[in-house]
Formats: sequence, C-alpha cells, structure tokens
Amino acid sequence: MPSATVPDIVVGRLPIYLRALSLMAAEGREITSSQELGERLGISSAQIRKDLSHFGEFGKQGTGYNVAYLREQLRRILKVDREWEVALIGAGALGHALAHYGGFRNRGFHISLIFDSDPAKVGQVLGGIEVLDAAKMEEVIRRRRVRIAMIAVPAEAAQEVADRCVKAGVQAILNYAPINIAVPEGVRVEYIDPVIHLQHMTYYLD
Amino acid sequence: MPSATVPDIVVGRLPIYLRALSLMAAEGREITSSQELGERLGISSAQIRKDLSHFGEFGKQGTGYNVAYLREQLRRILKVDREWEVALIGAGALGHALAHYGGFRNRGFHISLIFDSDPAKVGQVLGGIEVLDAAKMEEVIRRRRVRIAMIAVPAEAAQEVADRCVKAGVQAILNYAPINIAVPEGVRVEYIDPVIHLQHMTYYLD
Repeated sequence: MPSATVPDIVVGRLPIYLRALSLMAAEGREITSSQELGERLGISSAQIRKDLSHFGEFGKQGTGYNVAYLREQLRRILKVDREWEVALIGAGALGHALAHYGGFRNRGFHISLIFDSDPAKVGQVLGGIEVLDAAKMEEVIRRRRVRIAMIAVPAEAAQEVADRCVKAGVQAILNYAPINIAVPEGVRVEYIDPVIHLQHMTYYLD
Repeated sequence: MPSATVPDIVVGRLPIYLRALSLMAAEGREITSSQELGERLGISSAQIRKDLSHFGEFGKQGTGYNVAYLREQLRRILKVDREWEVALIGAGALGHALAHYGGFRNRGFHISLIFDSDPAKVGQVLGGIEVLDAAKMEEVIRRRRVRIAMIAVPAEAAQEVADRCVKAGVQAILNYAPINIAVPEGVRVEYIDPVIHLQHMTYYLD
C-alpha cells in the first residue's frame, strides 16, 4: 500500500490542504492550482504537488485541481469521509469550550461521550451530551467502541486518564494537558498546548 | 549571534524541553540527562544534545544537566524569563476557557486585554479582565504596547482581526480560528486547530 510509505510530515499537511479546499468549496470555487493553494497556505507549490503525488494523480497538467474532487479524495485518504465518535475527558472550562465547538462535526468528528470525576459536573449537559462519571470511562468507551479521546484534565491526571482510555480501546489521543504522556506502540498522541506556540514565537521577539 | 542560525524546528522543540524541565523541578529533581529527557519526550537523546548545543554547553560529560540551571537558560533563550502581555480577541466559549486558564501566567504570559465585538459580551469580566469593545482594539493594543495576540473569533473574521492587530503593533499571533491568515513579513503566526490533529491521527486508524 502506498500509504505505508508516506512520511508522517506529509500526512500532517493533508488536513491543512483539506481545510483550505473546504473553504474554497464554500466560496463556490470549482478549480484551483498548487500555486493558489501554496499562496493561501504559505507552502511552495512544488511541495504541495509532491505531497499529493504520494497518493495519486489529482490534477491534469495545466488545468489545475477540481476543488470538490480533490477535497473528496483527501477526506477519503484521511478517513474523515465518515464521522468518528470522540470521548472528551474533562468538563472544566476547556471541556465546555470543546463540547460547544461547532467545528468538529462537519470535519469528521462528534464528541459523543463526556466524562468528569467531579460529582458537581456529572449529570450536566454540554452541547447536548450528558457528562458521565469518570469511574465509568473504561466500560462506556469499550462498549461504544470509541477509538479517539480528547484529554482536557489537569496535567497531574493526564497520564492515568490516558492509560485508562488506552485500556478501553482508544487508539488516538488529543492531549490538551500540558504534559507529555506515554502510550503503548500503535497508539497515537497529538498535543495542544498554547504556551508551547507562544514560547516558540517569543524567541523571535526582541 | 548564534540564535540567528538556529533552525526554526530546533527552536520549536525548546519549549517542550522547558516544559519537561519545569515539571522535573516541581518534582524536586536536581539533575537529569539527555537520556532521561529523551525518554520522557519520545525524542532521541542525541537530538536533545544537538538541539541544546546550538545555545552553549549546559551539561558536563557524564554528570548530566542541572535541572534548575538548564531551565533558567531555556527561559532566558525563549525570553519567558519575563511576563508578556497578551491580547485575547474573542470572548466566546473558547475565549472564556483561555481567559480562565491558569497555565499562562507561570509560563511567561498574561492575558491583559480581552476584546469582543458583541455588545452583550463587552463589559463582562473574564478571569479578572473586563471585555472591551473590539472597536477600540487598535487604539488600546497600541497604547499598551502589546505585541502578542490570541485570535479566538470565527474563521470569517480572523483575517480582519489579524490585520488590525498587526496595524496596532502585534508581532506574534496565536490563531485559534480554523483558517490560514496572511501577515506581513516579520510577524509570526502559529495555529491551533484540534481538527487538524484529529485528522492527522485518523489517517492511521483502520
């Protein structure tokens, strides 16, 4: 399979291409080019063509890409031509914001489970979903066969929560806690920590 | 200056090293090694030594790194041995979560200005800071000499908000809106879009 040999850094750019194409589709655009995509994204057109060539031929020389077609192909390649259920662990301020965020559903994801260990939060309804007792996490995640989790708990609880998610069958974790977590091989973790990005930028400020 | 020649990808890893060292310091650890750091972070010890060597000699052969000293050096290199004021634009659910997040202040950042264009939000107090009318954004950001902005507005408003921030003197933008924004040379933008990370991971799920 070609997908086995695609560098991870290339895979990581595909969602950015998909986001730009979805925006173009929403603007009513039918045709685009690697030049135009590159200008919008600050990526060279050669890089875009090379990245896409890992997955096939998506445009004809000189006529550019069909926006809708390339978008559908990227959705298929990234497996977001379906809807993935996501378990959100942590119903604090960040959990609230994630539960109410409208941008997951039209891009392939649906937070269908929310857990918290605070009895005051259990039973609340966030974005239409009832917050469940974190004690039931393993059982419910396993029963519902949810494979993606978002961790929005304090740093000191994140590793334990991740361990329990993995035991319940989770294979992909988006970790908002500002700490590195260890997971077994075959499980993927991505991190969101705004301070990491801010500190990266202050390096360049005088 | 050595810093001018350090690859950006190396700079981007320094905040991750700093985060790990801060955690070790909080655990009361005094000495660590590139091996231990590497194991915690899933990065090779050779990579860590090479990254740090861009900035000087931080450890003695065989004795490892002094946690507090290396942490202070990284804080200095990343310029977070001070507190940066940050303007937050957007006081919706995400803006609320960011305004109440306790993890900025001890890592070099303080949200000192919050703006929203919704009259119902202006005047609210979030995390001790009053939400100001977005119409005053340029004037207040310029007067307060704030150089970092977090954009937490809908995608369709993000470019205009970014333009206005840059006009007011902002040089670093953390953009939470799910859209690429264009900025003049010399201004840095980093992005936070959870769906990009989720889609990166679903590629690998069957």
